[in-house]
Amino acid sequence: MFEDKETKTEISSIGEFKLIDKITESFKITNTSTIKGIGDDCAVLSYPNKKILISTDMLIEGTHFDMSYTPLRHLGYKSAVVNFSDVYAMNGKPKQIVVSLAISSRYSIEAIQEIYNGIALACKNYGVDLVGGDTTSSLSGLCISVTVIGEANLNQIAYRSGARFNDLICVSGNLGASYMGLLVLEREKKTWAANPNFQPDLTGYEYVIQRFLKPEARFDIIDILRAKDIVPTSMIDISDGLASELHHICKESNKGCNIYEDKIPIDPQTMLTADEFKISPVTAAMNGGEDYELLFTIKQDDYEKLKDIPQISFIGHITDNPSALYLITKDSKAIEIKAQGWDSFRDNQ
Amino acid sequence: MFEDKETKTEISSIGEFKLIDKITESFKITNTSTIKGIGDDCAVLSYPNKKILISTDMLIEGTHFDMSYTPLRHLGYKSAVVNFSDVYAMNGKPKQIVVSLAISSRYSIEAIQEIYNGIALACKNYGVDLVGGDTTSSLSGLCISVTVIGEANLNQIAYRSGARFNDLICVSGNLGASYMGLLVLEREKKTWAANPNFQPDLTGYEYVIQRFLKPEARFDIIDILRAKDIVPTSMIDISDGLASELHHICKESNKGCNIYEDKIPIDPQTMLTADEFKISPVTAAMNGGEDYELLFTIKQDDYEKLKDIPQISFIGHITDNPSALYLITKDSKAIEIKAQGWDSFRDNQ
Repeated sequence: MFEDKETKTEISSIGEFKLIDKITESFKITNTSTIKGIGDDCAVLSYPNKKILISTDMLIEGTHFDMSYTPLRHLGYKSAVVNFSDVYAMNGKPKQIVVSLAISSRYSIEAIQEIYNGIALACKNYGVDLVGGDTTSSLSGLCISVTVIGEANLNQIAYRSGARFNDLICVSGNLGASYMGLLVLEREKKTWAANPNFQPDLTGYEYVIQRFLKPEARFDIIDILRAKDIVPTSMIDISDGLASELHHICKESNKGCNIYEDKIPIDPQTMLTADEFKISPVTAAMNGGEDYELLFTIKQDDYEKLKDIPQISFIGHITDNPSALYLITKDSKAIEIKAQGWDSFRDNQ
Repeated sequence: MFEDKETKTEISSIGEFKLIDKITESFKITNTSTIKGIGDDCAVLSYPNKKILISTDMLIEGTHFDMSYTPLRHLGYKSAVVNFSDVYAMNGKPKQIVVSLAISSRYSIEAIQEIYNGIALACKNYGVDLVGGDTTSSLSGLCISVTVIGEANLNQIAYRSGARFNDLICVSGNLGASYMGLLVLEREKKTWAANPNFQPDLTGYEYVIQRFLKPEARFDIIDILRAKDIVPTSMIDISDGLASELHHICKESNKGCNIYEDKIPIDPQTMLTADEFKISPVTAAMNGGEDYELLFTIKQDDYEKLKDIPQISFIGHITDNPSALYLITKDSKAIEIKAQGWDSFRDNQ
């Protein structure tokens, strides 16, 4: 649908080793914790004074992304950023990544370079070093696996399990936009499939589409929390929808929660798009996923320090009733929150 | 070809989260460097007194393994062990892994459990903790990505780049067996494809097949080197064949080498199988790959300490002539060594 018409060089014309050389030329090491990056059997890192945070995510063509509307550069960017988000969700800072890529021979060297250009841009924007990886061929489809290494002081780490009775529930940014972006792209794809001469017009949907194709991770929230000397009692990033993440925090903390429909932050473009698709924007926020915002809890005492921060919304509080999770609607009804987050095994068959 | 007929439960019947719970129940944390394993956005590790080694490898169905003759448990075992091997190749010790698995819905829960059983056995045998991962669906094929975290003291780390003039070139174990195992399995597969009632008889090939399907990594060599107070001047593991790995060491060290055909360690079963396939066992050793033995260089002064170790062979020495790599044949001819290691983009199209 948005295929480019640039030069295409077959991967087999230069081979795997030269391909890796070509790609890694552009990556520079910037962090003092990186002693040795790409080029040996392992990278070598040093963290004498910090705890180390490790997370991994795999993105699969056809399951997590659709090549007909996903620019390769954005795909590379997103595959790195969603991993950085996991480190921020522990109240840490990402410092290194390793990337494995399996790609079929129908992709060109320029295509692989585009993916790595996206990864390089993400690394630059977030101050992360690419320190290793594996590039191999697949018989079908593209697969990207990223492992991120980050750091935090032991007393800064925010687990999912630390929420306490009466803690305030906070979210960064706004929710549901990414899911609406996905719906717009899927609609345009269907129109295009019916008529290949159709040119998608995405005017008016730029924000929701960008939230889906090129999300950002909330390093700014981590910086704000540190500046205000606040360690969240619990934290998680919103990858599967607010409902699913609330369930994780409540389950791990052995608590319940009340959140308020009118407090859930939703962008006007998300509202308009949801209206067009005749779905509730709250449903998009609760169950859409891929927002990569941070969901966290703080002590009531910390409210004053954060109440004027525009990037943070206070959406509810923690209750003492384990597994009782409620959404309080605008007309004061309490609806039980069910975790309907995305499950790749259920939703893609 | 070796398909089992056990119970098969569809993944969608329990969903992704319960699947992860079910799998991770069986993994216990054993290392003091693991502070928090599976169950949050990140694992938390602590390495105040050691350098950290990181490596990653991806195994793709159809490129790296053939499901018709690869038992899932062995596949899990191998995917972990080949990563451990990368840490040993730095003269370090693996301590944690994270595993991402993409699997199509045609696989059952029992199948995924078998893969993790293999990973668990490898972790137990090598003293490694599984601390995180991602399990997702793929539209086709199985993909396993493993990232390993290991440790070493700074002055113990062996890079590829440290080989010096006159250093002795050593290899552990024996070479070429894995490649012969692959050839036997491919031959049996062809016979089976022609006649599905055919029952493969692998008697007499047990060793070479095991070397291919369930390789081990050489932790014993690392222990021996430490016991003898030797740090190799350079080291690499043999995943792409001796020729390719010699090229890596010589290129990174800016040196050349002479190795001697009659010194290359080859198991009798490799010899017999190579004879049957009418290929030279030396070719299997040089270009076969997947041996996961260690190739390393030591100072001449350290020879006395290692000369009686049966697991180590001395196959040649480092020369001062960069990029001049020679195999000296039994009749004293010098043949230039070309890197013909496996390239997934060239060999799988």
